[in-house]
This record gives sequence, C-alpha cells and structure tokens, in this order.
Amino acid sequence: MPLAHNRTGPLLKKLRTLMSNRKYVPESIQAYIVPSGDSHQSEYIAPCDCRRAFISGFTGSAGTAVITTEKAALWTDGRYFLQAEKQLDENWTLMKDGQPSTPTQADWLAKELPVGGTVGVDPCLISAEAWKPLKKSLQSTGHSIIAVPYNLIDLVWEDQPPPPMNPLLTLSEKYTGMSWPEKIQKVREKMQAKKCGALVISALDEIAYLFNLRGSDIEYNPVFFAYAVVTLENIFLFIDEQKLDTEIKHHLQLNGVSSDLQVMPYDKVGEVIKTLVDQVEGKFWISPKSSVALTHCVDKSRLFAQTSPVAVMKAVKNATEIQGMRMAHIKDAVTLCELFSWLEKQIPTGSVTEVSAADKLEEIKQEQDDFVSLSFATISSTGPNAAIIHYKIFLSDYSTSHMLDTLARTALWEVGLDYAHGTGHGVGAFLNVHEGPCGISPRVSAAEIPLEAGMILSDEPGYYEDGKFGVRIENLVLVVKAETKHNFRNKGFLTFEPLTLVPMQLKMIEPSLLTEKEISWLNDYHTMCRDIVGPELKRQGKKEAYDWMMRETQSIG
Amino acid sequence: MPLAHNRTGPLLKKLRTLMSNRKYVPESIQAYIVPSGDSHQSEYIAPCDCRRAFISGFTGSAGTAVITTEKAALWTDGRYFLQAEKQLDENWTLMKDGQPSTPTQADWLAKELPVGGTVGVDPCLISAEAWKPLKKSLQSTGHSIIAVPYNLIDLVWEDQPPPPMNPLLTLSEKYTGMSWPEKIQKVREKMQAKKCGALVISALDEIAYLFNLRGSDIEYNPVFFAYAVVTLENIFLFIDEQKLDTEIKHHLQLNGVSSDLQVMPYDKVGEVIKTLVDQVEGKFWISPKSSVALTHCVDKSRLFAQTSPVAVMKAVKNATEIQGMRMAHIKDAVTLCELFSWLEKQIPTGSVTEVSAADKLEEIKQEQDDFVSLSFATISSTGPNAAIIHYKIFLSDYSTSHMLDTLARTALWEVGLDYAHGTGHGVGAFLNVHEGPCGISPRVSAAEIPLEAGMILSDEPGYYEDGKFGVRIENLVLVVKAETKHNFRNKGFLTFEPLTLVPMQLKMIEPSLLTEKEISWLNDYHTMCRDIVGPELKRQGKKEAYDWMMRETQSIG
Repeated sequence: MPLAHNRTGPLLKKLRTLMSNRKYVPESIQAYIVPSGDSHQSEYIAPCDCRRAFISGFTGSAGTAVITTEKAALWTDGRYFLQAEKQLDENWTLMKDGQPSTPTQADWLAKELPVGGTVGVDPCLISAEAWKPLKKSLQSTGHSIIAVPYNLIDLVWEDQPPPPMNPLLTLSEKYTGMSWPEKIQKVREKMQAKKCGALVISALDEIAYLFNLRGSDIEYNPVFFAYAVVTLENIFLFIDEQKLDTEIKHHLQLNGVSSDLQVMPYDKVGEVIKTLVDQVEGKFWISPKSSVALTHCVDKSRLFAQTSPVAVMKAVKNATEIQGMRMAHIKDAVTLCELFSWLEKQIPTGSVTEVSAADKLEEIKQEQDDFVSLSFATISSTGPNAAIIHYKIFLSDYSTSHMLDTLARTALWEVGLDYAHGTGHGVGAFLNVHEGPCGISPRVSAAEIPLEAGMILSDEPGYYEDGKFGVRIENLVLVVKAETKHNFRNKGFLTFEPLTLVPMQLKMIEPSLLTEKEISWLNDYHTMCRDIVGPELKRQGKKEAYDWMMRETQSIG
Repeated sequence: MPLAHNRTGPLLKKLRTLMSNRKYVPESIQAYIVPSGDSHQSEYIAPCDCRRAFISGFTGSAGTAVITTEKAALWTDGRYFLQAEKQLDENWTLMKDGQPSTPTQADWLAKELPVGGTVGVDPCLISAEAWKPLKKSLQSTGHSIIAVPYNLIDLVWEDQPPPPMNPLLTLSEKYTGMSWPEKIQKVREKMQAKKCGALVISALDEIAYLFNLRGSDIEYNPVFFAYAVVTLENIFLFIDEQKLDTEIKHHLQLNGVSSDLQVMPYDKVGEVIKTLVDQVEGKFWISPKSSVALTHCVDKSRLFAQTSPVAVMKAVKNATEIQGMRMAHIKDAVTLCELFSWLEKQIPTGSVTEVSAADKLEEIKQEQDDFVSLSFATISSTGPNAAIIHYKIFLSDYSTSHMLDTLARTALWEVGLDYAHGTGHGVGAFLNVHEGPCGISPRVSAAEIPLEAGMILSDEPGYYEDGKFGVRIENLVLVVKAETKHNFRNKGFLTFEPLTLVPMQLKMIEPSLLTEKEISWLNDYHTMCRDIVGPELKRQGKKEAYDWMMRETQSIG
C-alpha cells in the first residue's frame, strides 16, 4: 500500500476542532485517545469499529492512537513496526512499544499537554485496566482524563460502515459437550463462591461460548455483537433482536411459557446494570478487560474486578471439544500434505503462481468439508490417546506459563538473537484463534491464569530478519497431565501433546545443531504423523500425498 | 532440640488476656499478628526482636505467627517445614506457605474471627506492602485491622534482652569506591527525577551502604540500628548517639562548623517525618517494604511508594566493590582447598570429629586474615578479567530474572522433581548475604528490578529428600555484559561470570547425564580455578592443597 501524502491531515484538523467544541465534549480537551479494540469486546473488530485505522492509516490488530492539538502518535508492538512505518503518513509519529527509549502514552502526554491539561476518551472503547493506570499517571503530573460520551472519530468519519447484522448459528451438545443452561449453572456456582450477585460479560467469544451460539460479525472470528449479564435469578442477553430467528429462539428457550433469559437491545446494557445495582445483593463481577463504560455503572465498593469465570471455563476444553480439535487437525494435516506434495511437483514446471496455489488449496479444502462426520467413528476406534508424545518440558503446578517462554528462546539468546512476539496463546474451540486468559510470553501479565490440563495453546517460536525473511513453526498443543518418574510433593506435572500433525520440513533442519533429545523428539513426532495421518490419507486414496508424507517423516540423526 | 510440652501455653494465655485489656489496645482484638522481621529493617534480627520465635518456639528466619482467642498458627515456607514441625508445640498449627491447600492468613482469619472481628498488629513490625492486601482482604469479609501502639509480646516477654549497642566501623573509599556524600548526591538526583522532596530509608543494609559504615547489631549481618531521612537540603540519621565515637563523627563530618547531617534519637523518626511533611515540598519516597508506622506518617497523596533508590544503587556493584569480591573469593577458594585436602587425608585415619574439623577451618582462616592486602597487587596485575567463562544462559534486557529460574529446574522437572526454594538472591559487598532487590525465583515478585551488569547473585540449585539427604551448589556469580555473535535490536545481552572458584566435587558428577555443553562448561570452570587459585596456593606454599585442587579439576568427558 503506497503512502498517500497527507491523507490524514484534513481528518486530524476536523477532529481537533471537535476537541474544543462544547457541543460534543463536557470540557475542552487537549488530547484524544483512540484505543485499539471496540471496548475490548474482541481483539479483532468489525469494519465500523476500525476507528484507529481510519484516523491513522495503520491497520494492524494492535495499536493506540493519541492526538493532541499539535501532534499525533501511534503506539504498536514489535509485530507491526514495519507495517506501521509504511502506513503512517507524515502527520504521525510511530512509538515502538517494548523498546526502552519509547515513552509510555502517559509520559508522552505529560510532556505534550499544557499545564493542567485534559485528555478525552470514549469510555466504551477503553478497558478498566487501561484506564486506571493512565488516570493515575496523568493525575500525578497534574493532568486529568475524562470520558467523552460522543465518539469524536465517528463524527469525522463520513462513510463509516453500518454495524454488522449477520445471522447466528446454534451449536448442539455433540460439538460443545455441554448445554448452555449447564454452563450458566457452573457460572453461578463460581459467582456464589466469590459472593457475587451478578456477572457482566462483554467479551464476544465468552458470550458465544456461554450460549453455544456462533456468528460472523467479525471476519475470521465466529462471534456476534452482544453483552450478557447473569444474576443468580436472571439472564440478560443484550443483542439486536432481528438476529434471533425461530431456531435461535428455540435454542435460547424463548418459545416456552417462562424463561430465565430476557433479550434486551444491545445498547441498553449500562442502563440495566445501573438498575440491577439496587435490586441484586452482593458484588458485580466485571472483568478488568471490560470497558469503563460498564465498570463505572457500579460503585467501586460493589465491584469484583477479576478475570471472567467464563474465560477460564472456555480455556479448559472438555473431552468433546478436544475430540473436535483432534479431528480438525487430522483434516488440516491431510489438506496440507496434499498441497505440499502438489506444490513440490508443480514448482519445477514453472506453472505455479500465488493465485493457482490458492485455487488448488481451495479445491483441496472443498473435498475435506464433510471430513469430520465421515471419519469421526474410525478415528475414535483407534483411540486418539494411543500415541502421545511428551515434550521434554515439564512444569509443576505452581509454575506460571511465562516460564516456558524462556525455554523457547534460549537457543536464540545464546547467539544474541530473539523474536519480538510471544511464544504461544490460547486457541478457541470453533472460536477465536487468539484467546485468553492463558498464554506463553515473556510478559508475565500476558497469562492471567496458570496452565491447566485441557487448555489448547499455540507453540510458535520464530526468527525474522527485517526486510529479508522470516521463519516460524506454529503448531497447536494440548496441555495434559504428565507421567513423571517422581511426583515432587504431589504437586503434579504437566506437559504438551501435539495437536498439529503436519511434518516439519526436513530440509530446513540442520541436525548437527540439535541435541540427542531434540532429534528423538522430532523422530517421535514424525512417527505420530505417520500413525495418525497416514491411514486417513490412504483411506481417502491420496497416494501422492501419502508418499510425500512418508518421505518427509523419515527418521533423522 | 526436644519439643517442650506445652511451653507456649502459659505465654499464649497471658497474651490473650492483653488482647482485651483496653490499657494496651485501642479496642478489644480477637487476633494478634506477630510478623517475621523487626519492622522490615532487616531479614535477620537481633535477639531482642525475636518475638515470633519467643511466642511460637519456631526460630527460622521467615515466618508469621497469628494468635486468635482460641488458636495459634504459624506460616512459613518450604525451607523450614521440617524445622517448624519439630519446634512448634501442641498449641500451634503449621501453615505450609506455597502449598495449594494452605489458606492465606486473611482467609484463615476470615474463618476463625467472630462476625466483625478486629485484628491487631504492631505497626513498627509490619511493612506497608503486607498491611495493604491484608487490610483489604479482612475488610472484604467484614473484619478490620488496627495498629496496636504497645507491643503485646514485649509485655509478656519477661527476660527480653536489651537492644544491641555495638560500636560502628568506618569504610574508606579504598573499599567502597565512593564517598558517602557522593552517594547522597546520586540519591538526590534520583529523588529529583521522581519529584520527591524526601527519602525515608529504613533497611539497615541500605543505611550502612549509604554512609559507608558497618556495625554488628545483628549476628552475621554487618549492620547497625538506625533510620535515615534524606531531603534535598538535609540529612537526618536516627541512631543512638553513644554509638558515635570521635572517628565516626569525623567520618560523618560532624566535627566541622556546619554539616548537612543531623543526628537524632532512633525512636524520633516518625515525629521528624511528620514535621517534614509541612516543611518539604514534593513527595515522600518510602519503600513499600518500610513499616506502616513510617508510611502512615505521610498522607497517601504525598507518598511515593517504590523500591528505594539506595537498594538499587547498592545492588549494582562498582569496580572497587567487584574487585573486593573477587579477592574475597580467591581467599575463600584457598581456604576450602586446604580444608578439603586435609579432610581427605584425615578421614581414613578415623581421627576427624566435627569439632576437630571446625578447629582446623578456624586455624586455616586465621592464616588468611591479611590475605586481601598481601595479594591485591599480584592478582590485579594478572588481571581478574583474563579468564571469563560465559554461562550458556543469555538474556536480553527486557527479560526479568525469574525467567532464569526455569532453566535451573528443567532437569529436575523432567523426572517430576523440584526444590522448594529460589535459585538465587542478591549478595552484598561486605554487607548482608541475602540482599534485594534482585533475585532469581519462580515468584515474579521476588525480583523487584531486572538484572543489570554489576549485580552479584548466588546461583544455588539443589535437591533434597526429607529426612534423607540434601545436595546444593551455592556459587556466587557476577552479572556482566555478554559478547554475542549478534545483538538483536541493540537490546544488549547479559551473562554470568563465576566469582566462586572452588572445584565442583567430581565424584558426585555422573558425566553420562550431562550434555556436551555442560561438560565443556565444567571443564572451563575448572581451568579457571587452576589459573586463578593455583598461583595463589603455590605462592602461599600450600603444596598439598595445590595437589588436591589440581586432582579435583581434571578434565572430564
């Protein structure tokens, strides 16, 4: 994307006029913050919510824009430095998060604001955990932060797309392993244990998980716009009613005489919370990742600001969800083996283009579409637990997952190299590809809870040279209980079991750099690919892909 | 030590009477907390401050006693479970910190206290960082915590020893590398950078470090009882004046016409802080490890509660301090080589007892007493940096040290084992053997600041079987800049250089369990012992010790 000269200049000018227009701001503000996500309901956002991209030009998934009366600056992390440098025009300064010389937003504002300055932000778009330290930092330098009820970007954005209004999909227990009323029951038990009378849920994937519903309001994320509030007596689902057809209403038990569940308009969530504060006893459980527009509805003394219990339930997959993930990965392996064997044959002929390769992948995928239902029984009978390979890494239960990050980086550190992203993140079961609250990162805060058997994570160490190349393995793993020779103080140990079953490319591996243990891990992994993917490739009559897979999984060392 | 039947029974009875005696408590309390340290001035304490040991019988360095009207419980960590089990009598319940089933003090109190109960504690003996979460937890369950101005244990303790009153020792720049007024200057720069008008210092080793003084008020810790307050204009040292002889007064520049420094009685620190609040502009920097008796002197809005800048300065050793540590470790290696070679010869004759071995060590040490001054020049000329071995571990500057803890434990985790203590802690230069604010531990909070070149840490992985045996390596290492082939994003990498130069016992090592890298690290380390300790053993004419050292440092693998 070529850089348009001064594209954002006129937009920033209009925005700055609004910053002192008392029709839209409670008091004149000297800086306006445009956070990354849409009220932290979801990491990825719908086109109507891409406000930071609109005002700055930078389209990456993470980044915060801050506009003062004179300057405009954008903070983003190591994954996006190159992209941001290309996309920002001359009105913008790139702030590289994670580099020692980069000021925090508060430090930069402290320098740029006039004495006693005021910073504005849309309270629906900033999480409580981001608001609190920002407010404190600004106050310590004599400034203040206020909630601006109008979104100033929306006022500038003339051709802003409308909010998505896509139909929903119900998931039966065959795929979820638990009905939504059972999930509500479990949530209420957790609420009672913490003396909470209400739980406010704003993360879109938690709402989709809780009600066994899926949507398509956000590209590549099977979620839909909604809020939910669960009390010990009632359930409120805040959603546009036109999304609810007969099947969805039946699923939500809205067709019966009585129901615990009430549907309310999406934008009424704040009002309802404020009413419930007087009607419900106990604390209000609201994740610190929810917006301050929600947390400010509840008096501080009534607030229980902890990781949502739904996020924790969702992270620990049940047997049905794990089985579904295993099946999906066999399908994935079959597809990729076929694509790679085709590519190896075609590339030397000079006939492959990026377009023809993408077409081929699409064709292969189409064939696999009904795979789950056809082969489910077959695989179940061989037993997916028959071949479990244990990583050499074990961790005892008091260990938090950021510790594992070190192990992934040691080989690079020894030669003074590193990679500028985390090593792993939670992955949803037919939900978001990035999901909390677990993760493997050098940042302790990236993981809100310790690892537990049943969690699914990515394992994705990489290495990149700016402007030259990048390599990364991105396999999914399942956390399982480890069988160790001893069991120190009965703490219990955990290990990873591979879910991804695609061969590692042997010609990219230099065996002399691997230890004996690493070589035997690789050979065991390839044996597992042969044992599980091999029979399925044969069953589907994919002889060329089978031969390719057998060649690529030869023992080394 | 045999367990005396019901030794603490009568003491607890007296204490419980005081808990409702309005002469000593502002209101009746249903629980009394006896924290571990003496107002967190020092990890180890003087006999007069061993209140928790007096009331519970448990003499370990870490542990908190909580006494309710009915029960008495003691919390301590993995290092002390066995000792505490032996020392506590039948009135006490041992609470094993770090085990999942162990309740926190607040959770246990919530269960034990009557509705709306009150917990008392001596505010001089509890740190602000311990008080705050305890207060919050108790309040959330309807209870409260109050400061009790009288120490109830002192009232029960009939033969409590008097506070120590030992003479001080001055350290010249030859040993410290920096005069105390220069250190004050650096501290004031750090205060100004944080907009602080005053700094309150309560950690005894920080005060000793800052003023280049040493004492002997606490066994094995060369510190003395004092508090200090530094403002941009003045310096207040709160200390018993009879400790200050002519030499000390000269050192503190108290003999001149005017001085920045004023000496005040030890127990006046709170009063002076309260007066300064009205006289000094800016914030009051008080470490959260200081007692609430101090932090409560300052209004919350004026408090800057961060790690003390003196703690950070002290952790990063200067060239003179590092040189001193190197010399001390050569002396240590000479002493231990001589002892071990003597032991190996004597043990087969059956003539060695624990007493005769201790006598021999004392004799060897006496010989070495003037070692530093004699050999300083010699060693300097060969250059202590000539032989630097780099650990295989490197870490980039954004990494915090708890990450390294994982690397130390991996080999044990693989077979389901672990050790129940940290891997390393800061070590003082002629100061405390345990010193903050750096450390290597699975607990993220154990290290308040990242590692930096110049820090000295212990490296002490171990393995223990309760009631059977324990093995531990405890070597000291210096953090130095690493020379790596690459330098990722100019972050800079760090590594460890050994300071301890005593051979690892070869007959305890099974080479088949080591990797090639580990074997070559060990051989390099032993070469370093030979190169640095060998010439000194020869110079001192210790032939037997030299031969022993050469035999114990043979190359393996």
